[in-house]
Amino acid sequence: MRDVAIIGVAQTKFGELWDTSFRELIAEAGLGAIKDSGISGDDIGAMYVGNMSSGLFVDQEHIASLISDHMGLNPVPCTRVEAACASGSLALRQGIITVASGYEDIVISAGVEKMTDVVDATPAIATASDQEWEAQQGATFPSLYAMIARRHMYEYGTTREQLAEVSVVNHHNAQYNPYAQFPFEITTEKVLNSSKVADPLTLLDCSPVSDGAAAVVLCPAEDAHKYTDTPIYVKASAQSSDSIALHDRKDMTTLNATKVAAKKAYDMAGVTVKDIDVTEVHDCFSINGLLAVEDLGFTEKGNGGKVIEDGQTRIDGDFPINPSGGLKARGHPLGATGIAQACEISWQLRGDAGKRQVDGAEIGMTHNVGGTGGTATVHILSRDQN
Amino acid sequence: MRDVAIIGVAQTKFGELWDTSFRELIAEAGLGAIKDSGISGDDIGAMYVGNMSSGLFVDQEHIASLISDHMGLNPVPCTRVEAACASGSLALRQGIITVASGYEDIVISAGVEKMTDVVDATPAIATASDQEWEAQQGATFPSLYAMIARRHMYEYGTTREQLAEVSVVNHHNAQYNPYAQFPFEITTEKVLNSSKVADPLTLLDCSPVSDGAAAVVLCPAEDAHKYTDTPIYVKASAQSSDSIALHDRKDMTTLNATKVAAKKAYDMAGVTVKDIDVTEVHDCFSINGLLAVEDLGFTEKGNGGKVIEDGQTRIDGDFPINPSGGLKARGHPLGATGIAQACEISWQLRGDAGKRQVDGAEIGMTHNVGGTGGTATVHILSRDQN
Repeated sequence: MRDVAIIGVAQTKFGELWDTSFRELIAEAGLGAIKDSGISGDDIGAMYVGNMSSGLFVDQEHIASLISDHMGLNPVPCTRVEAACASGSLALRQGIITVASGYEDIVISAGVEKMTDVVDATPAIATASDQEWEAQQGATFPSLYAMIARRHMYEYGTTREQLAEVSVVNHHNAQYNPYAQFPFEITTEKVLNSSKVADPLTLLDCSPVSDGAAAVVLCPAEDAHKYTDTPIYVKASAQSSDSIALHDRKDMTTLNATKVAAKKAYDMAGVTVKDIDVTEVHDCFSINGLLAVEDLGFTEKGNGGKVIEDGQTRIDGDFPINPSGGLKARGHPLGATGIAQACEISWQLRGDAGKRQVDGAEIGMTHNVGGTGGTATVHILSRDQN
Repeated sequence: MRDVAIIGVAQTKFGELWDTSFRELIAEAGLGAIKDSGISGDDIGAMYVGNMSSGLFVDQEHIASLISDHMGLNPVPCTRVEAACASGSLALRQGIITVASGYEDIVISAGVEKMTDVVDATPAIATASDQEWEAQQGATFPSLYAMIARRHMYEYGTTREQLAEVSVVNHHNAQYNPYAQFPFEITTEKVLNSSKVADPLTLLDCSPVSDGAAAVVLCPAEDAHKYTDTPIYVKASAQSSDSIALHDRKDMTTLNATKVAAKKAYDMAGVTVKDIDVTEVHDCFSINGLLAVEDLGFTEKGNGGKVIEDGQTRIDGDFPINPSGGLKARGHPLGATGIAQACEISWQLRGDAGKRQVDGAEIGMTHNVGGTGGTATVHILSRDQN
């Protein structure tokens, strides 16, 4: 099994991109990553694209063919992978596995979602939950995560203000991210007073509806220095499943898929959570950012609100989380998120993150979730090969 | 890169399965393949599922999580892959790559589609074409393939009767396939006189709308005999892309993605088309069965109609095609088809195909197409490891 490196990254601006079509978005990110890596189109052996629901958002399936076509890459094999909001990281994972296998040398892993071409994105997003047991009964994603939040508050005394702090930190970081959908600060008070979406969650606890794309270029680690002076090495790729429906879980306040994937990833990389310098977590709702801090092992279960309130997840904190602004403030074009996380960690480990740089970051982690935790992935990236 | 073997296969009956839900279909196939392979659930390292459009057909994305959940396999990682009607073979390919890489040892590759829960499947199927340049202009899949057929008739003198013969042969074979949607004979006259769908194609030139699922179990070739006395070895897995829209092709009568994938597969397996004893091809419309015979290299371009008319694709012909009944008569639940093809070739190479057995088949091939050829895959399987 060959070691794998990231040699190029790119993402589009995330936001309501009325003037950019689905195919333009992915081409912009893909060609950006190709340029960043120094490869030429002829070097590319395969491409993977994470996307949750192009069928419902833009009436287009078979996007793999569309993308290789629109990027001028035919006959390069292109494959779409999907696991709701974790689709992007699955594209990363399939790219890593394909390079590791020796089937291909240079692989592009990308993600894209164009969500603003429908009148209401909520029904499409709801297809990430159990259609028969959740969506058809009226449950939407905000309501499912609101139930998790409510239970976490009940079990552990987590406060409304602690949840809000997840969004406050994200917005603070996003002001330094040129790709962020919402690059401005907000206050706790503003979160608490924004419109109720599903009690206790308000509008500013929720990630937005976004358009966007991101891409990375992978190659065998041993070849990486042919292309770039700053390769980022993949130390672990782990994925896990859990029940798709919330009511089938033993414990609503833990995403078991995150815990299982994190343990696998730490073991594979030969590190512990204490070795991780910077992390991008899946905070589609503020409560999920809080769960991630606990389930990835940064603190014990129930203590997530406290460590966030204490500033430990800030860029200068003990374990910086989401310097990019996270799903809340960078934006969350579903299939693109997992790849955008890998872009951000790559920039951080290269030392290219500007005003949102985590000082001296050497090992980084990404955490991507599908649905309410039916799928989770954890990737560990490193500046050093060994 | 490790060699890979298929150690278990299963498929559901294909047809209008009103009494079986999406999740029941995939569980039946998946558990059937597990049983056929002799593994236990604990052995499974990962699962891939090919599916074209569960979002549009059953309002459910994130089916990977649903499936691992409903099969009782959590926390096994499960990933959906999609390239329209080629989705199934991409699940096979990702499974092969994953086992080859060493990331996992035992992998299930499955495919599923539940198409009959919508009033009209045509708009969902049309999302496999270029939405902006084809579907929104009114082109449906029958009309796109009808244009290909018309051009092939014009260029090479292919006759209406030769096209019909593809369906006649498929239906003949399907009568011996217990899983086939249409297990009965039809005549050339019946094909010609069935309702016009898109001139020159009639109803009996077209594969049906189907429900169904299929699954195979993969493991490293070196371990295969631990589980079964009749492993089937994967000699090649190849995939290629072409323009998604028909008007961008240099030649409408050739699927270049098929040609590129076939060449790669023959090279990888170290065989020529003459070594292939039995083949399952993607004949979503009769014309596509004819193109496949040419583009896979069984005969030169333009001669497909002639060799089919001469009976060379029949079970006792020179190069038997679709002993299963093909997409036309076995049925075509989109995401399941590529896996059902691998099941059929496995049965053929094991010598387990009953009255549709191709005598002495040792090397088999599957050919799966997405859209009008935007994606194509070719897999070569063998009874012998070397």
